[in-house]
Amino acid sequence: MLEFGTGVDEPCLRADAARNRARLLDAAARLVAEHGAAGLTMEAVAAAAEVGKGTVFRRFGDRTGLLTALLDHSEKKFQASFLSGPAPLGPGAPPVERLRAFGCAALRRATDDLELQLAAEPCADRRFVVPPHRVRHSHVVMLLRQAVPQADGELLGHVLMSYLDPALIHHLVNQCQMPMERLQAGWHDLVARVTGTPEGASEDASGGTDESAGGTGPAG
Amino acid sequence: MLEFGTGVDEPCLRADAARNRARLLDAAARLVAEHGAAGLTMEAVAAAAEVGKGTVFRRFGDRTGLLTALLDHSEKKFQASFLSGPAPLGPGAPPVERLRAFGCAALRRATDDLELQLAAEPCADRRFVVPPHRVRHSHVVMLLRQAVPQADGELLGHVLMSYLDPALIHHLVNQCQMPMERLQAGWHDLVARVTGTPEGASEDASGGTDESAGGTGPAG
Repeated sequence: MLEFGTGVDEPCLRADAARNRARLLDAAARLVAEHGAAGLTMEAVAAAAEVGKGTVFRRFGDRTGLLTALLDHSEKKFQASFLSGPAPLGPGAPPVERLRAFGCAALRRATDDLELQLAAEPCADRRFVVPPHRVRHSHVVMLLRQAVPQADGELLGHVLMSYLDPALIHHLVNQCQMPMERLQAGWHDLVARVTGTPEGASEDASGGTDESAGGTGPAG
Repeated sequence: MLEFGTGVDEPCLRADAARNRARLLDAAARLVAEHGAAGLTMEAVAAAAEVGKGTVFRRFGDRTGLLTALLDHSEKKFQASFLSGPAPLGPGAPPVERLRAFGCAALRRATDDLELQLAAEPCADRRFVVPPHRVRHSHVVMLLRQAVPQADGELLGHVLMSYLDPALIHHLVNQCQMPMERLQAGWHDLVARVTGTPEGASEDASGGTDESAGGTGPAG
């Protein structure tokens, strides 16, 4: 533990690096809020944070790395809410209720960060192996295995996850002008069909789920 | 009809252009078969077809245009098989049977052309509006509306389509080493859950469906 530098100096250096990183991400987030993600450049972030362009490149590699780092922060908050936050999104509610809450929270989070998520979309080869996708997929598979133990949870997990794909949500909301209420109703219906839950039970639970999940504020 | 050129000359010119185009596509298809899609360049196609590089660029615009044109030919054959080919893939079988056959044929077609389909994948903004996707989605929605008239066919159509996404199939087959039999069983299970068809009926029908759909040779 003390092989490189003293225990006193190193945490300081690390805290410094973390602060610099946070300052760059704050500047990038402001730029996205003001001008949208499409126009975000490494140069603009450097200028806004008053550092050299090289610092931004060293820290994030390239524009995709920067966008990924930006999304990472709000994704971590979302992960905390479904892994350990209050029920029904977090532990403590029956699996089907948690699935309903998860989809509604993910739909809200997707629409909040949609432009950023589309700009940072991994290529086809990496789309299903990047850590945020794996964490979400594992969570959905875990709930599916509890709800329908005899089913192929891994494959059905991909089916549910694909409904929450930012590219599809962009198509439905922006290209087809579909209201978010219809996407949420579609999620409840899909969970009901996939888990074999009666539709009436789905409608009863969804009202409570919406309220509770809303209180956790999943998107940053 | 006769405003530009005579009725005699023009069909000849058009036939000539079509022959040249076919020659370039044949050369490109040979290169993909020999060396894979990843290494396909406009220069290599020009050399293989013994024409100038400019001719290839004029004809297809860019590499994505060339890959799209390559896929277009086999997609048209696939479209013909589900729009007007023999049942159960084509008209004449009950909608749930046609859905089962459609998925199995699409899975086979995806694995045949997988590398090409991944290389030609449209960006997130265009993925759901390109004509091949729209034709397939409309077909699935039409069958869903017959099978489950009270459901939101448009949304459930996207759910079924996403299972056949080349990027997901690549992940499952190449990155997770999942056998094609499991993907096919997963498709039958998904159709059963989405349409509320009993699982026993699904298993009975899938055997016949597989054989019949195989006979139509959907992938070129």
